[in-house]
Amino acid sequence: VLKKMDYAEEALNGNKLAAGRIIKMVEDNEATGFETIKHLYPYTGNAFVIGITGPPGAGKSTLIDCLIAAFRKNQKKVAVLAIDPSSPITGGALLGDRIRMKRHYLDPGVFIRSIATRGALGGVSWSTKGALIVLDAMKYDVIFIETAGVGQLGADISLLVQMTLVLCIPGMGDALQALKAGTLEIADLFIVNKADRPDTDEVVNHLENMINLREGGWHGHPPRIIKTTAVENKGIDDVVSEIDRYRYYIKDNDHSMESMFEREYRFFRFLIKELAADKIWRHLEGLKEFKMSIDKLKKRQEDPYSIAHKIINELIKMP
Amino acid sequence: VLKKMDYAEEALNGNKLAAGRIIKMVEDNEATGFETIKHLYPYTGNAFVIGITGPPGAGKSTLIDCLIAAFRKNQKKVAVLAIDPSSPITGGALLGDRIRMKRHYLDPGVFIRSIATRGALGGVSWSTKGALIVLDAMKYDVIFIETAGVGQLGADISLLVQMTLVLCIPGMGDALQALKAGTLEIADLFIVNKADRPDTDEVVNHLENMINLREGGWHGHPPRIIKTTAVENKGIDDVVSEIDRYRYYIKDNDHSMESMFEREYRFFRFLIKELAADKIWRHLEGLKEFKMSIDKLKKRQEDPYSIAHKIINELIKMP
Repeated sequence: VLKKMDYAEEALNGNKLAAGRIIKMVEDNEATGFETIKHLYPYTGNAFVIGITGPPGAGKSTLIDCLIAAFRKNQKKVAVLAIDPSSPITGGALLGDRIRMKRHYLDPGVFIRSIATRGALGGVSWSTKGALIVLDAMKYDVIFIETAGVGQLGADISLLVQMTLVLCIPGMGDALQALKAGTLEIADLFIVNKADRPDTDEVVNHLENMINLREGGWHGHPPRIIKTTAVENKGIDDVVSEIDRYRYYIKDNDHSMESMFEREYRFFRFLIKELAADKIWRHLEGLKEFKMSIDKLKKRQEDPYSIAHKIINELIKMP
Repeated sequence: VLKKMDYAEEALNGNKLAAGRIIKMVEDNEATGFETIKHLYPYTGNAFVIGITGPPGAGKSTLIDCLIAAFRKNQKKVAVLAIDPSSPITGGALLGDRIRMKRHYLDPGVFIRSIATRGALGGVSWSTKGALIVLDAMKYDVIFIETAGVGQLGADISLLVQMTLVLCIPGMGDALQALKAGTLEIADLFIVNKADRPDTDEVVNHLENMINLREGGWHGHPPRIIKTTAVENKGIDDVVSEIDRYRYYIKDNDHSMESMFEREYRFFRFLIKELAADKIWRHLEGLKEFKMSIDKLKKRQEDPYSIAHKIINELIKMP
């Protein structure tokens, strides 16, 4: 059993068990977790964080499995954090995927873990950022975050990543339309997996049209589309070299560094909000007046906006 | 032009323009908006709020169009709030849908509006709840909220609705798996639309299996599955009578009333959080010390958790 103060040192020595414990403490909003994060923070700043998003069934886990192997061949340390509830890591498992991914679990250069979507504090990025600091300090070179994409969950996570891969498959049909609603804007690379299927070119054409309608991209350069067949390990090298290319691209680009800080700042605002709400709530729950307000709400004697405004105005008095 | 104080009265008289202005003011966090909400609140408590979710292309708008017509035939007032960015109301339009829905716009017993997904304050339920209070006070009997479903967006909205319809279509294949990740648990009724397609029974069987694996439902009674072909107005009557049946079911059920307040309470917690964060942020932005903290963050001299903890501990001192 590890003593609490040893966690940071143990993690820095490559102890994956200690890393897991620190991440858990941050998830649970334990003070020791943040103390440890503070010790680890000076060692961070090297990891390249990649978000992988796409619908369930697109083959995200299989692709990540191939990418782990490819980066390991280049002597890179690789970590995977799974937020997607349908991921085999988080538990929505297909047996085949689980067995496949398993071969990496014992490799000391690979760290794989799921991130709880409901922790002590709201928002999955709360715990994910903590995990990234731990893994970055432990010198994991590449960290993948696997999400189910689309909507708020995907957007929250996009604050934490430096590059976003969007996975599609042939025959998605109407589901491709769903991509428009959120993921299209954040994609730095599109991957069309299961590209051995006959209608692959249809999806590729469709994506090309969507990309052409979109503004931005790599500041002028539209994101590429790469075809893969992950179950046969096909196209993986192309993905790896595109990741490397993108990594160097943003390193050399002031605008990218600026937008990286912009995202860090938005994450910081999120932290302030969560901590404030947590502190206020703990305080309120002990108050008699608060119980009376809740009673009013329950009896529909006053609308929720009025009660909330009143409470905040009384409670938070700025110096 | 309406004078500000007349909004509540105008809305109560059925003025849809006034209703739209109040909703806009709540979206923008304007004090007048909340004053108006306060006046309207005593008139609320009658509307039945129904969430409709499903992937883009499933025919949500066409189905809602049919349901509007069906409820209007029964002399019910109907409102629709669209949050789904792919909805023809919010703008992700297919021309056909737009024209179709248009026939209801001039009907004084029908209110149709989109809800902005990024307002002054975070979270779409902030504005949606305001809109519900306005429309409920105006005696709209049935209010539909159209969302793109899956994940956090869907979960936020589920706090505001009394019944959730989940729309599927034949041939969804892998996308059906995605339903597992969030929407399956909240469904009170499944609708398989485009049921003239050959592989309809396959989806129905698949859903039945998923329902059987699930706990809960109408406290023992599993949700029904209804087949519709909305473009031909087929199956709509079945949906309407199931909605009515469910409405009476929860009225007569103490447990349902309890869980309705539970959801109201969770929405209230959300309001407290948003208001607190907003107030704190306005204060911080004017402070010199805060600028120094941000500078530390930018230079990576201190981790975001430590800075945020420090700020909150100094700023919020409980009496």
